[in-house]
Amino acid sequence: MNKKGLFITFEGADGSGKSTQLKMAAEFFRNKGFEVVSTRDPGGTPLGQKIREILLHHDGKVASYCELFLYLADRAQHIDEKIIPALEEGKVVLCDRYVDSSLAYQGYARGIDTEEILMLNNIVAKSLMPDLTFVFDVSIEVAEQRVGETKDRLESEAKEFHQKVRFGFLDLAKKFPNRIKVIDANQEIEKVHSDVIKILGNY
Amino acid sequence: MNKKGLFITFEGADGSGKSTQLKMAAEFFRNKGFEVVSTRDPGGTPLGQKIREILLHHDGKVASYCELFLYLADRAQHIDEKIIPALEEGKVVLCDRYVDSSLAYQGYARGIDTEEILMLNNIVAKSLMPDLTFVFDVSIEVAEQRVGETKDRLESEAKEFHQKVRFGFLDLAKKFPNRIKVIDANQEIEKVHSDVIKILGNY
Repeated sequence: MNKKGLFITFEGADGSGKSTQLKMAAEFFRNKGFEVVSTRDPGGTPLGQKIREILLHHDGKVASYCELFLYLADRAQHIDEKIIPALEEGKVVLCDRYVDSSLAYQGYARGIDTEEILMLNNIVAKSLMPDLTFVFDVSIEVAEQRVGETKDRLESEAKEFHQKVRFGFLDLAKKFPNRIKVIDANQEIEKVHSDVIKILGNY
Repeated sequence: MNKKGLFITFEGADGSGKSTQLKMAAEFFRNKGFEVVSTRDPGGTPLGQKIREILLHHDGKVASYCELFLYLADRAQHIDEKIIPALEEGKVVLCDRYVDSSLAYQGYARGIDTEEILMLNNIVAKSLMPDLTFVFDVSIEVAEQRVGETKDRLESEAKEFHQKVRFGFLDLAKKFPNRIKVIDANQEIEKVHSDVIKILGNY
């Protein structure tokens, strides 16, 4: 691909406030005159929306590799149909979850080898990695309060699962310190946003 | 896995008569006193049924790797939930399409590297390969007549696509002559069935 845009991903637990922060970051870039595409993984395309529906709401056991390959199928379509064309047009693409969620959830929490996930992700994503990734780190208790009572299939997992996911994101940030920036998302929305802006100022 | 059963797959173009032949083979095994599980790929489980719906009826372009990974996600679930448990119980599992369809359609016809497909298939299928595979070979013209006017997303592909699929199945049979047996499916149903039975007599 002939990449000219900027690709930023927003990662963290449900209840971390990442989607709110993505909207605020989109506003920040628009105000600076950039064209912004806000999207999400899974479900960033009409086909992906159908895959998302299965992933979040299927009633019954889902095999680990079935889950992983559904996320990757969604990503293949998303990259082809939406992300790469936008980056080639020089736009700023802000994506709610991406490869680090696969690594944290299907790798650290479900136990699939993270090297295998990265290898598979490179196949579907044509080796496209984000220029910058925010991990919104939040305590399990705060996340749970924010999510509330209505939970999807993944939000309904046990506390231990969410602890592994949190550890996974923080460990990934240690492994890829140039790409991944950890933000304390236990703070108030405006304070979190100002921490994001401090980092975006360098881009 | 602790495999005791027999795993046979039925491959070929739509209109090759493979599904009819699978039913007749199931009857043959039942009459001999075996417990038989007849299933299909994709769509052999409730979750797989949702994936099948996307694969066969999504309206719009589907990225090649999205298509491949959806088939593989279906297979991961199918293997875990249905095929391996049945084989461990000593049953005869007859499956309408399996890995050779991925190779013929997404490999030979869509152009994804067949070694890559086999590598990915081994991940989701835990290296489970069929004991025996029938390829029902039929001319493009006969297949088209049998399919009729109401076509799904793959049946609607151009003639050249179907030619590549046919070549793919025949080439796979040359590469894996011990596992794959080619049956002339241009013949009458009963004659095709008797060709199948001749081979099954050895199992």
